[in-house]
Amino acid sequence: MTGHSTDREQRRITDEEAFLEERFDELFPICRSITGPGLRESLDRLSEWIPLEIEGVSSGTEVFDWTVPQEWRIDEAKLVGPDGEVYADFDETNLAVLNYSKPIDRRLSLDELRPHLYSLPDLPEATPYVTSYYERNWGFCLPHETVESLPEGEYHAYVDSEFVDGELNYGHAVLPGESDQEVLLSSYLCHPSLANNELSGPLVMALLYDRLAAWDERRFSYRFVLCPETIGSISYLSRYGDHLTDALRGGLVLTCLGGPEPRLRYKKSRRETALLDSTVEHLDEYGDASFEIHPFDPSSGSDERQYCSPGFDLPVGQMARTVYREYEGYHNSLDTKAFMGIDPLVESADRIERVLRTFEVAGYYENQYPYGEPMLGKRDLYPDVSSYGEWADSTSEFVGQELSILNYSDGTHSMLEIAERNDRSVRELVPVIELLRKKGVLERLPETEPPSTAEYGSPTDE
Amino acid sequence: MTGHSTDREQRRITDEEAFLEERFDELFPICRSITGPGLRESLDRLSEWIPLEIEGVSSGTEVFDWTVPQEWRIDEAKLVGPDGEVYADFDETNLAVLNYSKPIDRRLSLDELRPHLYSLPDLPEATPYVTSYYERNWGFCLPHETVESLPEGEYHAYVDSEFVDGELNYGHAVLPGESDQEVLLSSYLCHPSLANNELSGPLVMALLYDRLAAWDERRFSYRFVLCPETIGSISYLSRYGDHLTDALRGGLVLTCLGGPEPRLRYKKSRRETALLDSTVEHLDEYGDASFEIHPFDPSSGSDERQYCSPGFDLPVGQMARTVYREYEGYHNSLDTKAFMGIDPLVESADRIERVLRTFEVAGYYENQYPYGEPMLGKRDLYPDVSSYGEWADSTSEFVGQELSILNYSDGTHSMLEIAERNDRSVRELVPVIELLRKKGVLERLPETEPPSTAEYGSPTDE
Amino acid sequence: MTGHSTDREQRRITDEEAFLEERFDELFPICRSITGPGLRESLDRLSEWIPLEIEGVSSGTEVFDWTVPQEWRIDEAKLVGPDGEVYADFDETNLAVLNYSKPIDRRLSLDELRPHLYSLPDLPEATPYVTSYYERNWGFCLPHETVESLPEGEYHAYVDSEFVDGELNYGHAVLPGESDQEVLLSSYLCHPSLANNELSGPLVMALLYDRLAAWDERRFSYRFVLCPETIGSISYLSRYGDHLTDALRGGLVLTCLGGPEPRLRYKKSRRETALLDSTVEHLDEYGDASFEIHPFDPSSGSDERQYCSPGFDLPVGQMARTVYREYEGYHNSLDTKAFMGIDPLVESADRIERVLRTFEVAGYYENQYPYGEPMLGKRDLYPDVSSYGEWADSTSEFVGQELSILNYSDGTHSMLEIAERNDRSVRELVPVIELLRKKGVLERLPETEPPSTAEYGSPTDE
Repeated sequence: MTGHSTDREQRRITDEEAFLEERFDELFPICRSITGPGLRESLDRLSEWIPLEIEGVSSGTEVFDWTVPQEWRIDEAKLVGPDGEVYADFDETNLAVLNYSKPIDRRLSLDELRPHLYSLPDLPEATPYVTSYYERNWGFCLPHETVESLPEGEYHAYVDSEFVDGELNYGHAVLPGESDQEVLLSSYLCHPSLANNELSGPLVMALLYDRLAAWDERRFSYRFVLCPETIGSISYLSRYGDHLTDALRGGLVLTCLGGPEPRLRYKKSRRETALLDSTVEHLDEYGDASFEIHPFDPSSGSDERQYCSPGFDLPVGQMARTVYREYEGYHNSLDTKAFMGIDPLVESADRIERVLRTFEVAGYYENQYPYGEPMLGKRDLYPDVSSYGEWADSTSEFVGQELSILNYSDGTHSMLEIAERNDRSVRELVPVIELLRKKGVLERLPETEPPSTAEYGSPTDE
Repeated sequence: MTGHSTDREQRRITDEEAFLEERFDELFPICRSITGPGLRESLDRLSEWIPLEIEGVSSGTEVFDWTVPQEWRIDEAKLVGPDGEVYADFDETNLAVLNYSKPIDRRLSLDELRPHLYSLPDLPEATPYVTSYYERNWGFCLPHETVESLPEGEYHAYVDSEFVDGELNYGHAVLPGESDQEVLLSSYLCHPSLANNELSGPLVMALLYDRLAAWDERRFSYRFVLCPETIGSISYLSRYGDHLTDALRGGLVLTCLGGPEPRLRYKKSRRETALLDSTVEHLDEYGDASFEIHPFDPSSGSDERQYCSPGFDLPVGQMARTVYREYEGYHNSLDTKAFMGIDPLVESADRIERVLRTFEVAGYYENQYPYGEPMLGKRDLYPDVSSYGEWADSTSEFVGQELSILNYSDGTHSMLEIAERNDRSVRELVPVIELLRKKGVLERLPETEPPSTAEYGSPTDE
Repeated sequence: MTGHSTDREQRRITDEEAFLEERFDELFPICRSITGPGLRESLDRLSEWIPLEIEGVSSGTEVFDWTVPQEWRIDEAKLVGPDGEVYADFDETNLAVLNYSKPIDRRLSLDELRPHLYSLPDLPEATPYVTSYYERNWGFCLPHETVESLPEGEYHAYVDSEFVDGELNYGHAVLPGESDQEVLLSSYLCHPSLANNELSGPLVMALLYDRLAAWDERRFSYRFVLCPETIGSISYLSRYGDHLTDALRGGLVLTCLGGPEPRLRYKKSRRETALLDSTVEHLDEYGDASFEIHPFDPSSGSDERQYCSPGFDLPVGQMARTVYREYEGYHNSLDTKAFMGIDPLVESADRIERVLRTFEVAGYYENQYPYGEPMLGKRDLYPDVSSYGEWADSTSEFVGQELSILNYSDGTHSMLEIAERNDRSVRELVPVIELLRKKGVLERLPETEPPSTAEYGSPTDE
């Protein structure tokens, strides 16, 4: 294992839109894959904004059922036609070469070449993004209209790549909170020049790091993870899975957070009733944010498939906007900054921040005086004079909320449920919760799930 | 602790309506509060009909998070105007003085007086009922139209009250049944001259005591409690909470049982699925009594808030008719006998008695021959000759009910559920249940909730 | 206990319809009852096709709450009128005598006779089937139109029967499978000449034995039981109840499987959510077979009432078509081969076979690589080149099904549930399941119900 923490001073964001534009333009041209120099360079640049500790897992390491592959390095790739025309050129777009292509330097006929050409008949102007990580192949990706126009004759296929024993890298950082219990934000770095389905996640993550660092208080510690998809999160779990099993209270995989869809799209964790799942549902029903909510589905998606594999079953959902398989630019050269947009990323960060703020108060509390109602009057939590006709509606409502919160705060009802019993958003209860905590009659419980049995001792033992 | 049991002979009710009229007229004028002579006198009079043991909790005693206040005694209260007119007079109505007002004998201007006057702008002819138990205040309650007509000048505010170290009193009685397991009926005494929201509960309780005492058999023991609201039930729980936790199988707080509403209004216990909650729902759906059923709500109500505080969480619901906050006479001088009515009290007693009778059979039973069906024929529970064409419909139905009761009586299905599987009221099954019990094939289980696991030993161990 | 296994060679069915016709005609005339020679002869003939081991339980044996009655043997029964006319004759139909009638040889008037005559006023041409097993009676069954035409005068009632200490018989056979876990198929033999409500069950059972014996593999062992109804299954349970409690994973009582109803009628087991119950519901919703599904009902039915008595509570449902109490021939001479039909029996066998085949795959499996996704590529379970645009829909679908099955196969989700999450029949998943099993990434779990907690060890313990 190798690891290093950047010693450069952490940079803060002053203008979110300018930040996004600049980082995007800096990161987009880099040729990333699941390993290699492009991945390392991308992690390095992002660590200016998120203090990532960057670690490596050596090639050949067994990570659960998988083996970390050799590093792929590429310098050049070119397909030259019989007419001297360059039909695919890595220097023009890094999508032009099959990602993880083995080196090749061969002259061959068009018929011999065809099995090594990838194109999209339904999108004839787009260059597809194609990979072959675990089976040694070579190939070029090019627009279908180009493929159709290729002349007969001898081609020169040239890929200057190599496979070396190196490492697979990922980066992570923890923003500490009052508790060691953690919330995970995870996204991936591994696609070359793609926008929505590559850079939207890390860029929104950088905004969120910046914002959460500025919160007055954080109930939870927040863990930020950037890794290549699938093999990266599996590698991460092979090192930190035990820790996450102990510490994790909720998490979000961030993917495809740009694009034209107006709402965020939440895919539930495998548990489907984890507190974070309930928090998003609660905000959708009672809050001012609407979400498109989907059940967990292991058959497609991103790294939540690994976090939610049955051996881990972590409470990690996925937050997206315009997702894989629902826009034509998915995994091809149409996935550009113009398609992704900058504004949607800011808006995605806004909504995810709201989910996290709500999650901070959504859990379990304990009334410190569970036998009979606590005496509210002596703590200035109740009007001195009790007169039904004289109380303002707001007084009645406030006292009612106090009594409701206190009665149900027995460690088995989440604050979300208490809010829902009162037919309102948990965010509206925050002032009451805070007052009751300040007066010492209510305490927050560490867990986000109810303990198996909530039980009080004998009342006369007090 | 002080306690005494009345040694007078217990009186029985011969004419329910006359009883209610007479008791009402006797109790209404007494100036009750949460402590003091008026409360004791009221308990004493009611103990002629319910053999209440009256106990006291000394002033200053800590009861959970509360402290029993000093006793309040009052002789006179009068507000005299600059014109010599008496604008508020305790002798005319005990509502005229702020309940728990401290003594005062002061001359002051109208402006100085105003903060001590309570009235209802929306009900200008009504005198409100206002209290200040735990913060020393003084004041007068009077119709808003009077407040508006007060002339400028010097007033004489005079309250002849005192606070003394004494006790808070409540009364309770147990009507024994076959089992030590208890059903609680609880109501409050603490408001001065109010009808529906004070006397309706104790008066219906007296009817119920009289009726239940006349039942042929009682499965449960019935506990009757009369106490001042909130501080009284908290005091009661501080003494008897452990006992109730062990013994209580169900309970009802009786409040506001008069007034014009045609149906009883049931507020579920905090558990919401306690057998008593299910019993009321069952009667509403399958019986001849319709109820307006509400979820538990700790933000308002009566002493069920204390019985259902999370440390106790007792299976106690609330039975009412025309409730607090839903009639304009709530907590003011419009809450009179005329508003409350006498007939509604009798009808409330009828329906509550039906709930209790149903609760007596609603619980869990055990088939004594659980391996295969019991042989009904040898116990004369089955026709000798089995001929599909010859059986009367009633025979088929009776045998079917026997088999259904026996199959499901394994300690995990309540008789309510068994009745509902048969799409009928549990009251219709009573003859079948009684026959099966008499024949020794069915036994009643002591609990009203299913044991955690119902399990039979090996069939060949029998 | 006596028992013998037929040593004759087992016969296989070549033409199902011819088989049913011949066996029906052979068995129909035999006078069966819950004991006696007719029952033994019927078991004996069926054991040519199902290798029944036939056992006996001696008269007088206590079986749970019941006692095995003496054997009933009958040679002749005749009711001769004053005019010499024979009004009821056992030789013409064995329904003519009250089943288990005691011997009688008496001359008596019509008025004395009437209490011993059974007929159906609503079906005046039908002879009812009437029994009196446990109370000694005598009597004749005859058409109501005959009863109405009986002349006054002296009748001769003659029944030549006897009760002897003998035994009650049943037969059973086990068709072994990969596992010792069993599926039960149970039907009854005890009615004399009735078709749908007697022979349909054993005949369909014989077809099923023949078909299941020909399956390539059987996950479960299949137990076939033929016994007299009620007392027979209770006797069987008294001997084999412990074994069934351990081994049984599902079962079906077969009854009334002929008649005109187009669909099979499934009555759930008492558990109502046993895997076999869910299997039938799943086939009804996702498969090509529609069922009329009923809740469990202990108040009527067949031997599922005994298998599902609360002490056993075995996962045994009932499969029928045109049932008791829903056709006018129920328990009378109108229940003939013409009514029952031969084709419906074959169709019933088809559908029950489909239920059993589905049940074989419906249960619980375990992903052998639960930490992260298993690496599908190295096992040829995933395309080498990953290109969204290039995968056929069928490839995506197949990979998605692999991932879904693997993610949810943690011992707590049945394959039925996994199929339903994928909105398809479990039968469509069979090729994927088989491939994953062959590749060693998926294993079948022995149980059909989820273990109480499915838990993996620490991922780093692997």
